[in-house]
Amino acid sequence: MHRLEKLGLTCEKVSSGGRTVISIVDDASTVPSHYFSQLDQVDKVINVSPRYPLTATAPQDKSFFIGATRFGGGIPVVVAGPCSVESRTQILKTAARVKQAGATALRGGAFKPRTNPYDFCGLGPEALAYLAEARAETGLPTVSEVLSAEQIEMAQEHIDVLQIGARNMYNYELLKEVGRTRKPVLLKRAMSATIDELLQAAEYILLEGNEKVILCERGIRTFEARTRNTLDLNAVAMLKSMTNLPVVVDPSHGTGRASLVKPMALAAIACGADGLLIEAHLEPSKSVSDAEQAITPDELAEIVVAANNIARLIQPTPPVPYTRPFAESKNRRFDPPVSTALPN
Amino acid sequence: MHRLEKLGLTCEKVSSGGRTVISIVDDASTVPSHYFSQLDQVDKVINVSPRYPLTATAPQDKSFFIGATRFGGGIPVVVAGPCSVESRTQILKTAARVKQAGATALRGGAFKPRTNPYDFCGLGPEALAYLAEARAETGLPTVSEVLSAEQIEMAQEHIDVLQIGARNMYNYELLKEVGRTRKPVLLKRAMSATIDELLQAAEYILLEGNEKVILCERGIRTFEARTRNTLDLNAVAMLKSMTNLPVVVDPSHGTGRASLVKPMALAAIACGADGLLIEAHLEPSKSVSDAEQAITPDELAEIVVAANNIARLIQPTPPVPYTRPFAESKNRRFDPPVSTALPN
Amino acid sequence: MHRLEKLGLTCEKVSSGGRTVISIVDDASTVPSHYFSQLDQVDKVINVSPRYPLTATAPQDKSFFIGATRFGGGIPVVVAGPCSVESRTQILKTAARVKQAGATALRGGAFKPRTNPYDFCGLGPEALAYLAEARAETGLPTVSEVLSAEQIEMAQEHIDVLQIGARNMYNYELLKEVGRTRKPVLLKRAMSATIDELLQAAEYILLEGNEKVILCERGIRTFEARTRNTLDLNAVAMLKSMTNLPVVVDPSHGTGRASLVKPMALAAIACGADGLLIEAHLEPSKSVSDAEQAITPDELAEIVVAANNIARLIQPTPPVPYTRPFAESKNRRFDPPVSTALPN
Amino acid sequence: MHRLEKLGLTCEKVSSGGRTVISIVDDASTVPSHYFSQLDQVDKVINVSPRYPLTATAPQDKSFFIGATRFGGGIPVVVAGPCSVESRTQILKTAARVKQAGATALRGGAFKPRTNPYDFCGLGPEALAYLAEARAETGLPTVSEVLSAEQIEMAQEHIDVLQIGARNMYNYELLKEVGRTRKPVLLKRAMSATIDELLQAAEYILLEGNEKVILCERGIRTFEARTRNTLDLNAVAMLKSMTNLPVVVDPSHGTGRASLVKPMALAAIACGADGLLIEAHLEPSKSVSDAEQAITPDELAEIVVAANNIARLIQPTPPVPYTRPFAESKNRRFDPPVSTALPN
Repeated sequence: MHRLEKLGLTCEKVSSGGRTVISIVDDASTVPSHYFSQLDQVDKVINVSPRYPLTATAPQDKSFFIGATRFGGGIPVVVAGPCSVESRTQILKTAARVKQAGATALRGGAFKPRTNPYDFCGLGPEALAYLAEARAETGLPTVSEVLSAEQIEMAQEHIDVLQIGARNMYNYELLKEVGRTRKPVLLKRAMSATIDELLQAAEYILLEGNEKVILCERGIRTFEARTRNTLDLNAVAMLKSMTNLPVVVDPSHGTGRASLVKPMALAAIACGADGLLIEAHLEPSKSVSDAEQAITPDELAEIVVAANNIARLIQPTPPVPYTRPFAESKNRRFDPPVSTALPN
Repeated sequence: MHRLEKLGLTCEKVSSGGRTVISIVDDASTVPSHYFSQLDQVDKVINVSPRYPLTATAPQDKSFFIGATRFGGGIPVVVAGPCSVESRTQILKTAARVKQAGATALRGGAFKPRTNPYDFCGLGPEALAYLAEARAETGLPTVSEVLSAEQIEMAQEHIDVLQIGARNMYNYELLKEVGRTRKPVLLKRAMSATIDELLQAAEYILLEGNEKVILCERGIRTFEARTRNTLDLNAVAMLKSMTNLPVVVDPSHGTGRASLVKPMALAAIACGADGLLIEAHLEPSKSVSDAEQAITPDELAEIVVAANNIARLIQPTPPVPYTRPFAESKNRRFDPPVSTALPN
Repeated sequence: MHRLEKLGLTCEKVSSGGRTVISIVDDASTVPSHYFSQLDQVDKVINVSPRYPLTATAPQDKSFFIGATRFGGGIPVVVAGPCSVESRTQILKTAARVKQAGATALRGGAFKPRTNPYDFCGLGPEALAYLAEARAETGLPTVSEVLSAEQIEMAQEHIDVLQIGARNMYNYELLKEVGRTRKPVLLKRAMSATIDELLQAAEYILLEGNEKVILCERGIRTFEARTRNTLDLNAVAMLKSMTNLPVVVDPSHGTGRASLVKPMALAAIACGADGLLIEAHLEPSKSVSDAEQAITPDELAEIVVAANNIARLIQPTPPVPYTRPFAESKNRRFDPPVSTALPN
Repeated sequence: MHRLEKLGLTCEKVSSGGRTVISIVDDASTVPSHYFSQLDQVDKVINVSPRYPLTATAPQDKSFFIGATRFGGGIPVVVAGPCSVESRTQILKTAARVKQAGATALRGGAFKPRTNPYDFCGLGPEALAYLAEARAETGLPTVSEVLSAEQIEMAQEHIDVLQIGARNMYNYELLKEVGRTRKPVLLKRAMSATIDELLQAAEYILLEGNEKVILCERGIRTFEARTRNTLDLNAVAMLKSMTNLPVVVDPSHGTGRASLVKPMALAAIACGADGLLIEAHLEPSKSVSDAEQAITPDELAEIVVAANNIARLIQPTPPVPYTRPFAESKNRRFDPPVSTALPN
């Protein structure tokens, strides 16, 4: 107890069934856990509050606007576009078509992480410029994945929302990099990440002072082989009770089958998702990547109408027009000493 | 080819890249696979059509009525009631309350398969009689799980829909038993069963001449520990494209948390489920089993209203009043010889 | 506390951080959990001791002999034979060959649970008679799966070890049936059963008075598709620390590939398994079932030699010759009252 | 076919059952798959050879030496040390003790990827210098994880084997970075990566000209909660048949329990692993990270003896002394044009 007090923590001793329990009265969620586990005579450390305080406790509305598009405020955001930007013409045409279909943001891959190193890995910086051109023509904010600090730099001017893909959710160096920008971040759940790990990944971003984080459920990996992934909508309903960050769902990756995108998009809205991320292609079978799961702009239009209808049903109150001042960075990280030693 | 012809199968030979492919022209989905794999010089057997022909190909509407409740016809069926029948009073009161809340069938466990042998395993035959009494008072058809041939016998008179629980989906002897009755069967997906295995389990029942099978998604087992199971709604959308059998969803077991039952019930309807199976209890925290996932009749009432609204949105056409004649049993099993030998 | 005392339980009250903890001093592992959870003012019930007391706490050596074969005593048991008994000739020849290869027991399926209802489901009672004949010729004890009470009856005279397959591990009615026999039971872990569920399934058998239970790890279901299942050898090492029941491993189902049977058989012995269950066939590619995973008797012989060498390395002490008197049935089930009501 | 020929590929046409199959005679494993899938009239593309040609087909012995330690040549490599380098004294003492225990390389985390952002994340560059000092004192090559290009740079002089952790197996930018160094790379399987994905991740490294890749199985994520991960030894046996790259196993992360490290280390060697990666700590309960799974140097010594005994049993031939010339970089990547368009 003496040593805990040296850390500035108030604590209390209780006895229970022959054991001594030291209860830390203050919020200690940001103190490294080895500060407690290493103490002599400590047998077990039990966390009673979540260890992602910024992500969990923010009482305020965490929705935000990008241009005219509001993430997290009642009307489902629909981020649509091709898996990969394939050419200038393709993305300009697609942007016009998905806007017409009701999309409120444009997605398109410039840098593609591919399982196989020989597959098409995106047009790179060129694609970023095309996306910006599409934004200029349609007014749709752009969403695109970044894989490295260098790519974040290149994306600054062209991309409105930086996407962290499922493969990089555990890439904490990259999370810190996007946390240092002031761009909103769309953070996808890794294919076998727990809900708690997703929230802790978000905490990495918030901790750097960037509060505009959108969580994205995109399917987890299970034994079921009929679908590419198992879309975990339980996680959406659960997340909505654990954080105020907007939660969107990607039924394209979540199912891997074009025919399942509509039913699962509607299910996502019905269980409380704030929006959708959907792969749409002018000619799905010709997509350079993920051809099986892309839908046409016409199919997208149907989904948007139905999704909005369902959203109205389950959230009858119209969202209040709202602009939120960007919050002060509140870096609450516990300042660790250089060595791992505890203060004596 | 000579030997295949002895089995009554027409076949054709094609050559491809130095290999010889023998294509069987007839429907051979019901011929035991070893009849092909064992033939000399056969290297590989590829199934091009599904091996659950009764479950997969039935072109007709597979919905059916039980009393006034239609399973599979546009308006969501809501099967509600306690996990376990705990007493006569409890089930009579609950039945009245869930009916008032909009439930269209009554569930209640008489025989409970329990992971731990020391836990409460149901009131047994007594509970069946109470359920029948509740049916008489409310007009609600009764749904209850059976674990053995003996229990099927006992349930005959009291129970309208025999439930096969997730733990018994692979219990093929039991599937054959319920297949021999003329009671509708609610077949739950096992906790790690693939969609194809669920359909083959249904085939066991249909093959015995019982076509009234209702499939039930109730969550699969994954690494995620925040929820009891991971409700696989992809499977619902997928099943609707693979069979005409009604598909219902159990958001109570599928989430294990009362607070998630409503959002996931609505998601289930939004992606095309024909109904819901929900644990409702007059006093959830006092439930003898699964207390964490039970909801109150009032919460149920809210779900029923919202679920019907969503169902109307996604299936605007009102269901046609309809009574279906019970189909002739069509046992198409390939008649196997006593030994495993192929005809020469 | 007054009501707990009515149940015959001594308890103690402690306070901790504003909460009141009632600690039950007696062993309450066999009291139904709703007896505690339903009490007014009880917020949470925490089990500190495992709820499979018979399986967990038995201090004595749980190994046993069948004929000359000892299950669980240092020298690996090798149960080998075809997936299915296909004919009298086949099983007699195979029995002779696997005995020569060093097998210490003979397996062979008489009743086969098949995912697809149209596949070969075993020769039934006929196969049982052939197995008995093979036993008479070779002296090898016989192991075969049973799926129903009726089949247990038929197997009585011919089969020495009743196998409960992975698909029936949760079939508690069947577990109780084999528990009522005095035959040793080989209990396979279900494809997504936790270690704790396997132990509780064993408890069902022990609770009926049958203590000769052999646990079998046979692979769990994961996302990995290169192998049929994922053999969970962690579970073997873990089980050895949780129970004295013998633990065997089935590398045939655990991998689904003949080429992996040997390395995984040796790994199983290296991490402490008491034996192996291996599918061996005179002509693997002609096996009526599971042809991909069957090995030849010659390959089996190599495995037996290597497995014994590894067993000697890790357990240098030679096993003491030993015959164990069959323990008295100790049915410690808490006697539940007819209704679910607590004593007042 | 005309367009495939423009890509320099020889092809052949065969007809089969009314369908036309175009078979590509040349090795096309490195051609981006959309070059085929996008062609008009192409319905389906089937890969018959694996798409990781460098990883899969290398016929030569892929073992290599680092100092006196050979990776992949018969005698198990034992990489041991603390999860995190905690201080200069700690790592120097530990290095001496693990060497004495028979370790052939030293591990120690300098940069720790932590699920929780508030936990200890390593001493950084300071730790690298301590590791180099420990190498100088003991002669043990050093193994340490890197998370970014910047850290690779810092590690150059101090670290002999760059570790890519499970969280970064899908971080293809990082894989390319380590591929550009000439340091051996220890590549851990991600927690839900398939075997094929692991091999393709290795291909990213080999493709940059770095052939010294060691694959590491460290447990996958499943539903089983008794162990931290499920060690997938099937994968080890499978990998040994798919590639000549050395395969090592990490039973510390693979089980998460100190008591299971020994049995699973032995199992790993028994099924063919080329080595072990083990967390050893002078005082396990005081470890700043992963305290539950660390073992003492004395326990390590026992494992080394037993592992070598088992290795001798299963691979009786002594490894031939051998130094392999570093192979020429063979970058066989198919040179993609700037746009995604196919040559007309």
